[in-house]
Amino acid sequence: MPTPFDTEMMARALQLARSGRYRTRPNPAVGCVLVLNGEVIGEGATQPAGDNHGEIEALNAARTNGFDPRGATAYVTLEPCSHTGKTGPCSTALIEAGISRAVIALQDPNPAVGGSGIRALAQAGVQVELGLLETEAAAVNPGFLKRMRAGLPLVRVKLAASLDGRTAMASGESQWITGPAARADVQRWRGRSGAIVTGVDTVIADNPALTVRDPALDIPAQPLRVVLDSSLRTPADAEILHPPGDVLIVCRERTAAADALESAGAEVLVLPGAERVDLPALLALLGQREVNEVLVECGPRLAGAFLDQHLVDELVVYTAPTLLGSNARPLVDLPIDVMKDQRRLALNDVRRVGEDLRMVFTPAEEPA
Amino acid sequence: MPTPFDTEMMARALQLARSGRYRTRPNPAVGCVLVLNGEVIGEGATQPAGDNHGEIEALNAARTNGFDPRGATAYVTLEPCSHTGKTGPCSTALIEAGISRAVIALQDPNPAVGGSGIRALAQAGVQVELGLLETEAAAVNPGFLKRMRAGLPLVRVKLAASLDGRTAMASGESQWITGPAARADVQRWRGRSGAIVTGVDTVIADNPALTVRDPALDIPAQPLRVVLDSSLRTPADAEILHPPGDVLIVCRERTAAADALESAGAEVLVLPGAERVDLPALLALLGQREVNEVLVECGPRLAGAFLDQHLVDELVVYTAPTLLGSNARPLVDLPIDVMKDQRRLALNDVRRVGEDLRMVFTPAEEPA
Repeated sequence: MPTPFDTEMMARALQLARSGRYRTRPNPAVGCVLVLNGEVIGEGATQPAGDNHGEIEALNAARTNGFDPRGATAYVTLEPCSHTGKTGPCSTALIEAGISRAVIALQDPNPAVGGSGIRALAQAGVQVELGLLETEAAAVNPGFLKRMRAGLPLVRVKLAASLDGRTAMASGESQWITGPAARADVQRWRGRSGAIVTGVDTVIADNPALTVRDPALDIPAQPLRVVLDSSLRTPADAEILHPPGDVLIVCRERTAAADALESAGAEVLVLPGAERVDLPALLALLGQREVNEVLVECGPRLAGAFLDQHLVDELVVYTAPTLLGSNARPLVDLPIDVMKDQRRLALNDVRRVGEDLRMVFTPAEEPA
Repeated sequence: MPTPFDTEMMARALQLARSGRYRTRPNPAVGCVLVLNGEVIGEGATQPAGDNHGEIEALNAARTNGFDPRGATAYVTLEPCSHTGKTGPCSTALIEAGISRAVIALQDPNPAVGGSGIRALAQAGVQVELGLLETEAAAVNPGFLKRMRAGLPLVRVKLAASLDGRTAMASGESQWITGPAARADVQRWRGRSGAIVTGVDTVIADNPALTVRDPALDIPAQPLRVVLDSSLRTPADAEILHPPGDVLIVCRERTAAADALESAGAEVLVLPGAERVDLPALLALLGQREVNEVLVECGPRLAGAFLDQHLVDELVVYTAPTLLGSNARPLVDLPIDVMKDQRRLALNDVRRVGEDLRMVFTPAEEPA
């Protein structure tokens, strides 16, 4: 049975894990706290990919602090890895350091680990306890978990609308519906995403850069920006093509326009589809490219397509305290005729962001 | 300078005032606490119209408790009345009881009182302090204050919509978008209203009773139900015509249908208007009838008309966690073409009500 002290230490490890949310991708953000005789002797968080995981950071910190971790308890938010990736296996490092107990929030869903880190620890005589604050630990790396389990990234659709659910005037005029605080908040969703997906209509209408511009987020690299552009209408001088960061333009068939886009630095990829780009194929591709979380920032048509195909894991809606009126454009293009076909959601979080309201929903039914 | 103890006592008086919110109309809900030597000797809240005001209740309570209020401090949420209405003037009662100090949150905006209660107290040698928790006191009786100042009731429009701002399917199908907790919450807005206004389209489509059915609210009488019905299309067997409570049907000109509606117990009133019922004239009429707060529960067309004419003081929106899609009916029929004509609001309150979210807005600009 975990003690209140165990819970407190795991909560601290979770805090460390969260601190890495913007910089560890494609690796999960993990936190580790080492405790000896009731005293924290070292703590660490996973560093950018290629650098140390949280456990190694914590061991190094303990030694730097002049402590020997022998006999310590390690509180870790995710099962320590047992495979040698870019860094050595963390379970081996913990065993060699002589820890006597490991309290682990969540088993690693990565098939390359799959309980083997826990087994290695247990076989070395370390007392292992699994499951403390498991839900909270899963919430730190939802995209990584989904990719490991399903091979697909988590899809988060961000929308900004008026109280009457409108995203732009009929003319297309839309800047700005939400206030500066909401727009700054969007930077954080971008910062934690491996890819940002938009549609060519948004590129043409708003010409956004879709970059992470908040230096406080300390991201290792810009997320991959993806433009869904069936017939390659992206202007070769679009803001999104400018550095920094990679751009992927996905079309249904290659046309002459592809050369100019490639010269501008973009990757052009063909994904055949009946009427528009094949979204499940796109997501599978992003999963293969180790994208954990996808942020979809687009107009009502593409957002409606993601919803219509049950591809949305999370819906983030910023609602501005304003009425844009009944002629304005809808939140999502989603034709529904009878109440029984409505798309129920669950409200997971609501908070004020400046003058606006931010709501986070998940689909009430599982995506098909 | 008010002491922390003064503030505590006034907060208690406000609590008493709020307890009367559903039963004092058309009078304001007022609370009074009497304190002698640091001890509460009596407290009271305004009773249903015709019965005692809060000050008299508090004096009676003190005497029932065996205390003499001589030398006491009275904390009152609204200036004690000095006119003889259905009950004797409260300022006189306080003076005759020999209180030595009166702490009053808010001056009475009623032209029949207008500072005269305060003057009477001061002239009798009572030490008067005005303004403690004034904003909070005003918030207890917003409709009464508006009616006293402008001769018009406060207009509160209640809407229930999906996350994408839709109130019904294109077919009109709409029951139920919000959950039982939200519908129960609406009872409280009805309970504090002197009148509930709807449109004939809602009567025909949903056939609502629009009554207060929550016995816990202990209302003195059903609010007046008002149907805006330009050409008298209300069916003579509509639910809204059934007892309990009075019904006012407002048309643009009297037709043969009026007789059947009158036989069913309704009052039929003609308010000429160009295309629809003259809303400002209707509100003036309700003000004359001593309605403090009007709750508008209607479809997007009528709600849009109230908004379009800048007649809305408060917008209460229940948002259900669901998408009804882009074919569904809008939140309000309000044609706007350019962003600069958007109708900005201020979000005053947001809370979860069951699965739904309740938001209360006021117009960001003053009604014209």
